[in-house]
Formats: sequence, C-alpha cells, structure tokens
Amino acid sequence: MQMENLQDLMKSDLKDVLHAENQIVKALPKMIKKASHPELQEALQEHLEETKEQVNRVEQVMELLGMPVRAKTCKAMQGILEEGKEVMGEDADDDVMDAALIGAAQKVEHYEIATYGTLCTYAELLGLEEAKRLLGQNLEEEKNADQKLTDLAEAVINLEAADHTEQ
Amino acid sequence: MQMENLQDLMKSDLKDVLHAENQIVKALPKMIKKASHPELQEALQEHLEETKEQVNRVEQVMELLGMPVRAKTCKAMQGILEEGKEVMGEDADDDVMDAALIGAAQKVEHYEIATYGTLCTYAELLGLEEAKRLLGQNLEEEKNADQKLTDLAEAVINLEAADHTEQ
Repeated sequence: MQMENLQDLMKSDLKDVLHAENQIVKALPKMIKKASHPELQEALQEHLEETKEQVNRVEQVMELLGMPVRAKTCKAMQGILEEGKEVMGEDADDDVMDAALIGAAQKVEHYEIATYGTLCTYAELLGLEEAKRLLGQNLEEEKNADQKLTDLAEAVINLEAADHTEQ
Repeated sequence: MQMENLQDLMKSDLKDVLHAENQIVKALPKMIKKASHPELQEALQEHLEETKEQVNRVEQVMELLGMPVRAKTCKAMQGILEEGKEVMGEDADDDVMDAALIGAAQKVEHYEIATYGTLCTYAELLGLEEAKRLLGQNLEEEKNADQKLTDLAEAVINLEAADHTEQ
C-alpha cells in the first residue's frame, strides 16, 4: 500500500479502529458476564452501547472520506483482548477478578484514546471538520469510560480485593 | 495460576510490563532509524534511555515484593509493535512515515499509561509506598513522552505531511 499523504494514513487508521471497535463489541458481553460488582457490570454495559455508536461514527467518517467501509485486522487490539481472555480464565476471587477486568478494560480504552487522538489531529490538519467532530466524540467517550473505571477501581473494587490480602 | 488477592494480580501485571518494556527497548532503535525528522529521532532516543531506566524500576519493585525477576509474554505489546512494524514496512514519504511513527509510539505509550496507572492504584491500596513511588515515576515519564509526541505531531510533522495532501 502506498501512503503518500496524511489522508492515506488517516484511512489506514480508520480501517484499523473499525476492526478494533468490532472486536470490543464482541468481547464486552463476556466481560460483563464475568464481572460481579453491579456498578462494574453497569459501567461495562453502558460502554458496550457507546461502542456500538462509535462504530457508526467511524463508518460515517469513512463515508465522508469517500472510502469503502471496510476494516483491516487490528493486531494490537487482538493482543490486548487475548490478554483479557487469559485474565478471565484465571482462578480468582470475585473482587480480584473485578479488579483484573477493570485493568483489562483500561488497556482497551487507552489503545482507543491513542488512536482517536491521532485521528483527530489528522482530521484537523486536513480541515475535515465533520470528521473531527465525530472522532472527537469517540475520543471524549473513551476518556470518560477510562475515568469512570479509575473511579470505580479506586473507590470500591480494588479496596475489596485488597481486603483479602490482609486476611 | 491462582489469583487470590490484589498482590497476586500486581505480580502478574509486573511480569507483563517487564516483558513489554524489554520489547520496547528492542523496537525503539528500529523506529529511530526509520524516523527522518531530527526532533522525532531525538524524542525517541530520549525515550529509549528512559525505558531502560523503567526496566530497572520494575525489577526493583519485583525485588521489593520478594518475587523472582521474571517476565511473561505480553501479547498486547507484541500486537502493538507488530502493527508498528507493518507501518514501517509501508512505502511512505518521509513526513508521512514520521507521522505514522508518532501514531505507533503513542499506542505504545498509552498501553503503558494504562498498565502503570493500574499498578500505582494496586501499590497504593496495598500500602506499598516505595513501589508506588517507583511505578509513579514510570507513569509520569510515559505521560510526558506521550505529550511530547502530541506536541511534535501538532507542531511540525503532521503539518508537513498534510502539505503533501494539498499538492
């Protein structure tokens, strides 16, 4: 593939993030099932709904750029989710599993924060205002989801897991 | 592996991040060689030196926890770096390649920000002050490296790549 300019690079990243988001839509229900804490289940469920909307926005941006709505394998997200799957296979107490699920979900969020951050910069430099607005919405949602998980981890779940350590 | 408490989870994450950092130490020289913009080369070189120091800190934390200094395969970082390698194999103009390298490096940084963020929370909840200090240093360095790359992307490199688009 020839990458002559920033628009080519942006198109390549859009195909990558579309695949990543589609993988997340498949992975989140398994994480929700594995979670014990109701607030964590709720946060993940909410993020699943957001993620489906994010897929729509990525597809809209692809249409704006006049490119086919097509994904390409995102090996990074495959690796991140593969590790998440390993964690879910561990023999862990409920609170420890919840803490591990939060850690896994935050790795997912941060990959997306990096990708949407880059895509927003590209859209801005290319003067693609509507694309920047749509990608910026996804970026903000990812940042909020990450922050919500940090708050949950600090306030409730990790504390319960830490209690086991002291027993 | 039995994960009964937060300390078990922390040990598992430390082994993961040690492998991730060691992979980054191997990958960065190739990225530096591929970069054209002197400021980007310099930023990546600086981060290579930081990364070597981060490996030392992770090993120190492992010793503080009385665990063997041993890594376990980090599939997430393998996937992230695999994508970086693909990008480096593309036939791209220098400015576009630099923009792509920045994007790849920021995905690496964000994976580490997520991991060290989680590890710092664990260390705090477990009352491991020295571990928290060491891991917090790594976290801050990763955040700074990410910010430096954003500044570089916005100020110089992506702009040059965007210029090609208008030609």
